[in-house]
Amino acid sequence: MPVLEQIAVEIAAAPGRGTPADYIPALATTDPRQFGMAVAELDGTVYGVGDWETPFSAQSITKVFTLALCLSMEGEGLWEHVGREPSGNPFNSLVQLEYENGIPRNPFINAGALVVTDRLHSLTGDASGTLRDFLRVESGNPDLDFDEQVWASETANGDRNAALAHFMASYHNIANPVPVLLDEYFHQCAIEASCADLARAAGFLARHGIGAEGDILLTRSQAKQINAVMLTCGTYDAAGDFAYRVGLPGKSGVGGGIIAVVPGHCTLCVWGPGLDERGNSVSGVAALDRFTTLTGLSVF
Amino acid sequence: MPVLEQIAVEIAAAPGRGTPADYIPALATTDPRQFGMAVAELDGTVYGVGDWETPFSAQSITKVFTLALCLSMEGEGLWEHVGREPSGNPFNSLVQLEYENGIPRNPFINAGALVVTDRLHSLTGDASGTLRDFLRVESGNPDLDFDEQVWASETANGDRNAALAHFMASYHNIANPVPVLLDEYFHQCAIEASCADLARAAGFLARHGIGAEGDILLTRSQAKQINAVMLTCGTYDAAGDFAYRVGLPGKSGVGGGIIAVVPGHCTLCVWGPGLDERGNSVSGVAALDRFTTLTGLSVF
Amino acid sequence: MPVLEQIAVEIAAAPGRGTPADYIPALATTDPRQFGMAVAELDGTVYGVGDWETPFSAQSITKVFTLALCLSMEGEGLWEHVGREPSGNPFNSLVQLEYENGIPRNPFINAGALVVTDRLHSLTGDASGTLRDFLRVESGNPDLDFDEQVWASETANGDRNAALAHFMASYHNIANPVPVLLDEYFHQCAIEASCADLARAAGFLARHGIGAEGDILLTRSQAKQINAVMLTCGTYDAAGDFAYRVGLPGKSGVGGGIIAVVPGHCTLCVWGPGLDERGNSVSGVAALDRFTTLTGLSVF
Amino acid sequence: MPVLEQIAVEIAAAPGRGTPADYIPALATTDPRQFGMAVAELDGTVYGVGDWETPFSAQSITKVFTLALCLSMEGEGLWEHVGREPSGNPFNSLVQLEYENGIPRNPFINAGALVVTDRLHSLTGDASGTLRDFLRVESGNPDLDFDEQVWASETANGDRNAALAHFMASYHNIANPVPVLLDEYFHQCAIEASCADLARAAGFLARHGIGAEGDILLTRSQAKQINAVMLTCGTYDAAGDFAYRVGLPGKSGVGGGIIAVVPGHCTLCVWGPGLDERGNSVSGVAALDRFTTLTGLSVF
Repeated sequence: MPVLEQIAVEIAAAPGRGTPADYIPALATTDPRQFGMAVAELDGTVYGVGDWETPFSAQSITKVFTLALCLSMEGEGLWEHVGREPSGNPFNSLVQLEYENGIPRNPFINAGALVVTDRLHSLTGDASGTLRDFLRVESGNPDLDFDEQVWASETANGDRNAALAHFMASYHNIANPVPVLLDEYFHQCAIEASCADLARAAGFLARHGIGAEGDILLTRSQAKQINAVMLTCGTYDAAGDFAYRVGLPGKSGVGGGIIAVVPGHCTLCVWGPGLDERGNSVSGVAALDRFTTLTGLSVF
Repeated sequence: MPVLEQIAVEIAAAPGRGTPADYIPALATTDPRQFGMAVAELDGTVYGVGDWETPFSAQSITKVFTLALCLSMEGEGLWEHVGREPSGNPFNSLVQLEYENGIPRNPFINAGALVVTDRLHSLTGDASGTLRDFLRVESGNPDLDFDEQVWASETANGDRNAALAHFMASYHNIANPVPVLLDEYFHQCAIEASCADLARAAGFLARHGIGAEGDILLTRSQAKQINAVMLTCGTYDAAGDFAYRVGLPGKSGVGGGIIAVVPGHCTLCVWGPGLDERGNSVSGVAALDRFTTLTGLSVF
Repeated sequence: MPVLEQIAVEIAAAPGRGTPADYIPALATTDPRQFGMAVAELDGTVYGVGDWETPFSAQSITKVFTLALCLSMEGEGLWEHVGREPSGNPFNSLVQLEYENGIPRNPFINAGALVVTDRLHSLTGDASGTLRDFLRVESGNPDLDFDEQVWASETANGDRNAALAHFMASYHNIANPVPVLLDEYFHQCAIEASCADLARAAGFLARHGIGAEGDILLTRSQAKQINAVMLTCGTYDAAGDFAYRVGLPGKSGVGGGIIAVVPGHCTLCVWGPGLDERGNSVSGVAALDRFTTLTGLSVF
Repeated sequence: MPVLEQIAVEIAAAPGRGTPADYIPALATTDPRQFGMAVAELDGTVYGVGDWETPFSAQSITKVFTLALCLSMEGEGLWEHVGREPSGNPFNSLVQLEYENGIPRNPFINAGALVVTDRLHSLTGDASGTLRDFLRVESGNPDLDFDEQVWASETANGDRNAALAHFMASYHNIANPVPVLLDEYFHQCAIEASCADLARAAGFLARHGIGAEGDILLTRSQAKQINAVMLTCGTYDAAGDFAYRVGLPGKSGVGGGIIAVVPGHCTLCVWGPGLDERGNSVSGVAALDRFTTLTGLSVF
């Protein structure tokens, strides 16, 4: 794909790459000059450029897949436990949780993802294992797995998520013991995968819910709904800016990856470890911005 | 259009219509059983059902047109004065304005619309007149005008908007005298138009920026950007829910109207005066939900 | 003391007693008609009326004693970890903690008391045992002890305090493991004592720092400082109202007790299990209000 | 009074004086090395040191007198329109006002003082004139007056207070037209007086409500209540710290003055234009701290 080559050249020449996340050592030491981008067509064919086959820490990108799994099993009832509205300023996250009686604003802020994980654990008995197996099937990569070093780091720095979980538990919005939930949650954050893996794994969101093996993972309506939540809530407090610049449903992670969906056409995954001040990959957002500009692909 | 007829029948049968806005008498006395819906094709052909030619108070729907006018004149510099992120819980609006030094979160909350109006006034000397003339041309309705009774009511109940304007002025984010700005702003809120008028007037957002007379109102990129802001911020604190259910860029007003855009296809305007607790038309959201479900039209 | 008799008669005749705390069963079942009041002179002589010798759950009243112990050992350095300003609306507690980087506003909100307990545990290895022993000596009651049923209830309903502790730990403002800290904290809340016990135990605050056995527990300046913190922060979000009506430094607990200090004169403890909507004993505040009105004793 | 001389020497030697308020030119140009302190005995005899007879801008100190006037005329009904609780973090002022439906937390934050002024205007037709005349009588200084330059500066920089007033008007908690109210309010802020004037004028708070001419300005209970509100709310977001260090009811202004009350003994006024980051006079707080330490006078 010539467009990918052109973007890689532009990104390599761009000044400023942001700074890798530094709250855990495993991420802080990543080389910020790395860059990869992959595009998966509806049939699973993947094109890539740069470090597109290098595994990285998927982090919050996995929240999309956990949500898809939970929504497919639980249906609309899920929304009694978590909202689907943007959260506004991150600064408000805790006060909003208090103001709204322990119901997080959406499934992509940490509080919301904890709730979804809690429910998936209740439904399956093994939320993180279910997620890993799902990703292996959808990505076609049977070796996809947790990075145990990242998991250990997350656990050692888990006070803030523990606070969120206990806080929601005080509103009876968490069903499982907090330590069990945190273990599941930190495992999900520790999934390691490449741009190729994640672009392919997200394919069902471009195929209106159809899985890699032709099975119906989600109804057409549910696939549309997840794309909508990604667009309004997928990039922390930069969802408006991301929609404005990129114009696609997307979900980022602090490992520097971003997945994006062009419904009916393709899925993308970009990776650059350096983050902007709102936690999104600098080169990743730039690459997606160029991609939609060069191709004219956008939902708007 | 048979789909419109079907929707009108369903809406008529639905229990619960919400409650008209009651902060000013002119809106409080509207009959909540009224319902209209119009679809404008790219060439300006309009189909409608119910009260689709009855004028109603456009209110915040006009914020989209004011933004388009200001963005076309001022370009990207506008975003130094107003953000483009969802605002989260309405309860936080004032604290966010304080926390973010007088820069409103987006152009569709009142604080943001005041800023855009202030800038359009500086650029044109007559923000509301410029808006009215623009709407007359784009809707093809030369009689479209302000409802002076609504304007007077807004003025008499304007303390909250005066507070917002003075507050932003204390951060030097308002350039004109507050009374002048408020007069412009309340005139904009008082535009009276029908579903047919507004569906046609919004056509340039589906035509990637091309006006009713073939002129370039906005660049393709700018048209995409406005649609993005509508999708993430257009329906108060229900943007996530609206994206989830309807899946189209949309903008609502407390008069009970909602415009929505299917980029490259058509524009819609629905009207039902009864509002839900978040300020959006109950029958309007329901009608758009049905429309996208029945037609499969959605950006996702 | 005739004044105590008069107050008891008035309280018995007053309509409305509030509602006992219901977040744990041990408190919810307390008879709200109980009422006791004790006054301890500087030499330890105690006068009482009603149920003044009945043990009740001291709850947050113990925060005063924990603060005194910690301040006497650690001195001014304590204030780097906890502030001494009123917290304003309880609704803001969490956002303030976030805004102020994990430093609680004062030692009498739960977050602040957790910090003080954490420090006392570091200093002594046994915060709750140190507190109990201190109270036994100062009250002259060697049988004063924890109510293990209340402790178990607190532990079973401890998610909110666990959230606060983990949240502050994420800011490195908690030194001990959260489960250890919570166990200490819940024991402190579970101290059971009578009005007579607590009025006597607080005597050092009226004696400018001198303990029951004549030893210097606090400097004159420190005793004054604790009284100041009690007056500005001692009754949750009703400190202003309590100062206005009663005009004495005081500290309340959700068990329905309140201690108050007339520096240089005496200490008081009242108990009535029914609480108002801000968590203070209805009959307790009324009794103290009458006491200062009838005696003219007040700091103002 | 030797103690005043000693304090003046210590203050002169102390490093760091803070920075004069700079939001209006009239205050920004004040020489921060100035310092004055006055003590008024119950009979009106005044002792002073340094610049104790130099007039300065009283600013928020006048809020105490406006409150006393309004409370004496309106009684307890006043508290339906303004609370008497500390406001917590200043950052929250607006959100609290919203959360509490336009009822300010206390009469000493700007929002609360606007409400009290509004009510005094309704009661007298001339709030600022009533205040000036009252201060002339109580201070014994018939030349005490407004500084018109300060008044003009306040008016030119009044957007934030205008925002507060309009915001409360939207909750129907302001009875007079906002421009009328602001003119009254800015006049009050512009009162110019010396330490000697203000120490004498506040004497009724130490005399349990008795005015300079022996008349009953307030009941004993009302005088106590105002002292209580001063102690819990009188020094912005440093009330707890002020109570801790000084231990007296006090009220500060951004002109650098502070009045303090020793009930039954005397009143004090200190002045030093340099402010700390919370808006209180650096040398003023230090001088009061030394005064209570050296004399042992404190309410605790």
